Amino acid sequence: MIRQLVLDVLKPHEPTMLSVAQEIAETDGVDGVNAILIEMDEEVRNIKFTIEGEDIDYDTVTGVIEDTGATVHSVDQVACGDRIVDEMPTPQD
Amino acid sequence: MIRQLVLDVLKPHEPTMLSVAQEIAETDGVDGVNAILIEMDEEVRNIKFTIEGEDIDYDTVTGVIEDTGATVHSVDQVACGDRIVDEMPTPQD
Amino acid sequence: MIRQLVLDVLKPHEPTMLSVAQEIAETDGVDGVNAILIEMDEEVRNIKFTIEGEDIDYDTVTGVIEDTGATVHSVDQVACGDRIVDEMPTPQD
Amino acid sequence: MIRQLVLDVLKPHEPTMLSVAQEIAETDGVDGVNAILIEMDEEVRNIKFTIEGEDIDYDTVTGVIEDTGATVHSVDQVACGDRIVDEMPTPQD
Amino acid sequence: MIRQLVLDVLKPHEPTMLSVAQEIAETDGVDGVNAILIEMDEEVRNIKFTIEGEDIDYDTVTGVIEDTGATVHSVDQVACGDRIVDEMPTPQD
Amino acid sequence: MIRQLVLDVLKPHEPTMLSVAQEIAETDGVDGVNAILIEMDEEVRNIKFTIEGEDIDYDTVTGVIEDTGATVHSVDQVACGDRIVDEMPTPQD
Amino acid sequence: MIRQLVLDVLKPHEPTMLSVAQEIAETDGVDGVNAILIEMDEEVRNIKFTIEGEDIDYDTVTGVIEDTGATVHSVDQVACGDRIVDEMPTPQD
Repeated sequence: MIRQLVLDVLKPHEPTMLSVAQEIAETDGVDGVNAILIEMDEEVRNIKFTIEGEDIDYDTVTGVIEDTGATVHSVDQVACGDRIVDEMPTPQD
Repeated sequence: MIRQLVLDVLKPHEPTMLSVAQEIAETDGVDGVNAILIEMDEEVRNIKFTIEGEDIDYDTVTGVIEDTGATVHSVDQVACGDRIVDEMPTPQD
Repeated sequence: MIRQLVLDVLKPHEPTMLSVAQEIAETDGVDGVNAILIEMDEEVRNIKFTIEGEDIDYDTVTGVIEDTGATVHSVDQVACGDRIVDEMPTPQD
Repeated sequence: MIRQLVLDVLKPHEPTMLSVAQEIAETDGVDGVNAILIEMDEEVRNIKFTIEGEDIDYDTVTGVIEDTGATVHSVDQVACGDRIVDEMPTPQD
Repeated sequence: MIRQLVLDVLKPHEPTMLSVAQEIAETDGVDGVNAILIEMDEEVRNIKFTIEGEDIDYDTVTGVIEDTGATVHSVDQVACGDRIVDEMPTPQD
Repeated sequence: MIRQLVLDVLKPHEPTMLSVAQEIAETDGVDGVNAILIEMDEEVRNIKFTIEGEDIDYDTVTGVIEDTGATVHSVDQVACGDRIVDEMPTPQD
Repeated sequence: MIRQLVLDVLKPHEPTMLSVAQEIAETDGVDGVNAILIEMDEEVRNIKFTIEGEDIDYDTVTGVIEDTGATVHSVDQVACGDRIVDEMPTPQD
């Protein structure tokens, strides 16, 4: 089970970041969604989505995103299993 | 449901940041409002509003702000769903 | 209701920062006051007041300050509503 | 018993980081897996896995990783015993 | 009531920072005292005292300090009221 | 009683950091061991061990390490007594 | 009563930092001792001791240290009273 998913997304100006976040939040297995505006230019907005839940469905979530004309640029972080495990910083980072 | 909303706002000197924050705080679904003065010049003040609640109504909140002659420059962060999810920093940031 | 108020104040050397803080702390709706010396020169002291309470009265507090000959240079932060909401840092800051 | 394992892994683009993390999360003795994209180029992706559990089996976990064509570049951190002990920063670091 | 007091003090080498801290700690209304050596030169030591209690008496505390031949260079922070309020950092700092 | 021990160790490539950490974790009085790869070159690996327990036996632990051909380069931190006390940062550091 | 004591100590190579820390930990009124290696050269090691307890006896502790041939270079921090009070950072630092 996917407990946490951090996606880097390139989104056209419409629909709004807010409406996309609301739509993701309503999909099964999602408890909550955080959306942050990283950067924007004439055409697109770079948005970072942090999604948490008991059993996130990757295809459903990315489907919601892509239906708005946006693209998932990269999966930056994922946490799977019975609980969310945080990344452990080490000197090698 | 919108649990948290971070707005970057350009506001004329009057009415005060305090009175706008109080007005937002009294709208339905809002628990509390934080307002910070980022910068000010001759004409305007750049204010950052952090709004939290059980069910924030975006149009109502931005209506309160715009009625004072201010403009919402950007929605910098939003958190939707059953609980507030914080942004997860990753090496890609 | 105002739960938290951060004021940037320019104050003559007398009365002391301590006595002004004590006076503010005794006004209705205030639980506690933090006062920090930011800078001082020949004439004035730049003091930062962080005031917290259940129902801070802005006019009463600024009245106490101004009665000492000090001036409120700016309201740097305010938190209103049912609870104190902290500012949420975002990449836009 | 191994309670925490931090692995630096070089992985081909397919299968995805997500699917490898899910597979590790399903092995015995693992509670949860965090996977972060550190860097990527034409050929490979540098992924950092933080794995936590009651009794992680090193060979099983690295087996899952290597079956996908990926290689474990280094074991960056490990925590063994009855509980997870965090690294203690000292001036010598 | 004064709940916390941070004093910047210039003290001769004797009596020791320890003995002055102990003496302040024994005055009424004081729960505890932290004393840190900031700097020292041939003549004096720059000590920072953080004093906390239910009802600190400013004159008593500064009297203890001055009786040792030391001087209170500045009151750097004070917290008054029913509880200790911490300073709230803002972009204006 | 030794509650925490931080050792800077130079270790040949074999046996692995993991197996040495597991062996230390199984000695009496040790609750858990954290091992971090600080650096490595052709010959050796610089490993930092953070060991915690109710009653760590220094000679036993260093014996386990030295039996693998590794050397304890320095004891960087130790905590003794009834509980673990953390280092207190001061301006003198 | 002394609740916390931070000492900057110059110590010959023998006896070890560990044995000195153990000895301090066994003195009355001490709960725990943290010892950190700050620096070392041909002759001496610069060790920082953080000592905590209900009622630390300064002369006993420094006696233990000096009996080993070490010298207390400075008392960097002390906390006295009914509880440990931490240093409060202020803009003046």
